Amino acid sequence: MDVALTEPADLQSLLRADLRGGTPYGAPQLDVPVRLNTNESSYDVPPEVVEEITRAVTGVAPHLNRYPDREFTDLRTALAAYLTATTGVDLTPEQAWAGNGSNEVLQHLVLAFGGPDRTALGFTPAYSMHPIISRSVGTTWVDGLRGQGGQAFDLTAESAVAQVREHQPNLVFLCSPNNPTGTALDLDVVEAVYAAAPRAVVVVDEAYAEFARPGTPSALTLLEGRPRLVVTRTMSKAFAFAGGRLGYLAADAELVDALRLVRLPYHLSAPTQAIALAALHHADRMLATVEAIKTQRDRMVTELAAMGLDPVPSDANFVLFGGLADAGRTWQALLERGVLVRDVGIPHYLRVTAGTPAETDAFLGAIAEVEGKDRSER
Amino acid sequence: MDVALTEPADLQSLLRADLRGGTPYGAPQLDVPVRLNTNESSYDVPPEVVEEITRAVTGVAPHLNRYPDREFTDLRTALAAYLTATTGVDLTPEQAWAGNGSNEVLQHLVLAFGGPDRTALGFTPAYSMHPIISRSVGTTWVDGLRGQGGQAFDLTAESAVAQVREHQPNLVFLCSPNNPTGTALDLDVVEAVYAAAPRAVVVVDEAYAEFARPGTPSALTLLEGRPRLVVTRTMSKAFAFAGGRLGYLAADAELVDALRLVRLPYHLSAPTQAIALAALHHADRMLATVEAIKTQRDRMVTELAAMGLDPVPSDANFVLFGGLADAGRTWQALLERGVLVRDVGIPHYLRVTAGTPAETDAFLGAIAEVEGKDRSER
Repeated sequence: MDVALTEPADLQSLLRADLRGGTPYGAPQLDVPVRLNTNESSYDVPPEVVEEITRAVTGVAPHLNRYPDREFTDLRTALAAYLTATTGVDLTPEQAWAGNGSNEVLQHLVLAFGGPDRTALGFTPAYSMHPIISRSVGTTWVDGLRGQGGQAFDLTAESAVAQVREHQPNLVFLCSPNNPTGTALDLDVVEAVYAAAPRAVVVVDEAYAEFARPGTPSALTLLEGRPRLVVTRTMSKAFAFAGGRLGYLAADAELVDALRLVRLPYHLSAPTQAIALAALHHADRMLATVEAIKTQRDRMVTELAAMGLDPVPSDANFVLFGGLADAGRTWQALLERGVLVRDVGIPHYLRVTAGTPAETDAFLGAIAEVEGKDRSER
Repeated sequence: MDVALTEPADLQSLLRADLRGGTPYGAPQLDVPVRLNTNESSYDVPPEVVEEITRAVTGVAPHLNRYPDREFTDLRTALAAYLTATTGVDLTPEQAWAGNGSNEVLQHLVLAFGGPDRTALGFTPAYSMHPIISRSVGTTWVDGLRGQGGQAFDLTAESAVAQVREHQPNLVFLCSPNNPTGTALDLDVVEAVYAAAPRAVVVVDEAYAEFARPGTPSALTLLEGRPRLVVTRTMSKAFAFAGGRLGYLAADAELVDALRLVRLPYHLSAPTQAIALAALHHADRMLATVEAIKTQRDRMVTELAAMGLDPVPSDANFVLFGGLADAGRTWQALLERGVLVRDVGIPHYLRVTAGTPAETDAFLGAIAEVEGKDRSER
């Protein structure tokens, strides 16, 4: 007993070396009037969907003493059907997989195909959880480069292929539309990367796909004949279901089946399965605000450009904009005006989510005030 | 395009080497009359708790467009209060942590304190997810031995300490009551292991603690002054909430805070938090069947011994019993009689969950028939 009581805690030395002194991922969760920092939908779940969700939970609640369906077959069937209905790509339930948020399906991929002595390559700036999840399971992360084709955040097939050849990764992460920059990839980049990396699993993170501008095809159209290609999706964004935590992916059935080796058993609770099913049953209602959000996005791009700022073309529900003398100072000044946006760590840039028309008004009013003032002070 | 279409799949070569040819964890999910194979509760959730769960989901469903509270503060507060109320050990919300099942909190521990070039030690047979989770994130697993003290499945302080000194692990897994053998550890084993492993995080998996025989103290009573000690719990067993997927742990607040470095952001959905809170609010109702289940457990121990079989003393909601000529054959013969039990891979032993009195009748009737027949055939 004395040993225990007198011992110094020294927690840092017990932690895995690469975690020491680190800070957890996550945007500040602040209670301000206009929250445009995490690319959530600003629109509540419609009452008739709330009703069906409630009914679904009432159905499963009496049997919560039992483990859920470990293979979540009904949910996989509904997810495959949703993707087929919205993209025209025929998919079977065996090609669909899900987790508690797309982060978990990404973790499954890294656990299965990454790990110690293996390398994952992504093209920075992209979704910051890709390196965090890769490293957290011991995979070496290589920060690839964007902007080798002229435009600051563009990724060309030529540049991506050269980097893939150089690093010979086991996993490649592409992100389309790319977060935090907003632009969708041309599918020729995906095709070229896949062909140039014959020993890699190629992941296209399409978390924001439903917001893409007209004529932007999904990488799902490339799945046929590409057994190493994976497309990840989420219900958190266009589906307005961030609180339900349901991410998913589509890929070759054999690859999907291998994820059963690394998922934690019964990882999707019975209510999670039932609630996601209820929401998918009302996909048209859940997606009803997508066009309105795209309108606000396009409005922000236009207005920010008119102010002399530098918005990046967006296929997502957010806009990254540059031209700021001090992004941190602008972030703080917006917050003081009740508008929370995201400082994604790119100097001179901030990211703002497209919400309701009133939220756009509030944001544009605040940024005009802040940047007008800032410019007059220079 | 041709490259992709003609390429052989060869998925196994893409998989992490240690996963190749593996099979996923999990007991068969078979639809038979008497399911006594996964240590679930056989008792449905009471109607008044179903009502409160439904009400809770109706409350959060309209706002599922928003991410949940990433720090799940209300749930941590309720979990700490539950442990304090049931064990008398004062715990703060900062000392509580949760995941989608105890497997996820175990994974958080291994991600934070294990990983490549690190070692975890457990004492086999114990919960088989301990090695699976450790290895899946690249941690070297050492199978320690039980039964060095005379009894086949006992673990003495002397034996555990000797093995800890030999292997110098970064993580030690103890399991009390031990699954699949059923017996609780004496706390002197925990104290001795902790003192003998000054560079290790010591995890006591108490998934079945609420079923322990009278006078069995929890390792929670040892937390004070032991900043490297962790006690994991689950709502899946005594709490009759396996479908809700809520595992948790208690430890020093600084250690718990470090788990934020490795959890996936927003890992607990808004409904998961709300439903678990509703269930915790009715802890007395959810735990009401524990004594009835213990009665069936004790009855099975007595009856199996009377049949000349060899049940292991149990502090859990299951009984491991030996003395079987061929455990696989007995498992199959019980299944043919509508009774599903668990073959945990220990030769001559099977594990059976304690359920309702009628389920005990069915199991005891079937095993008497099977083993009687088996013995007469020899």
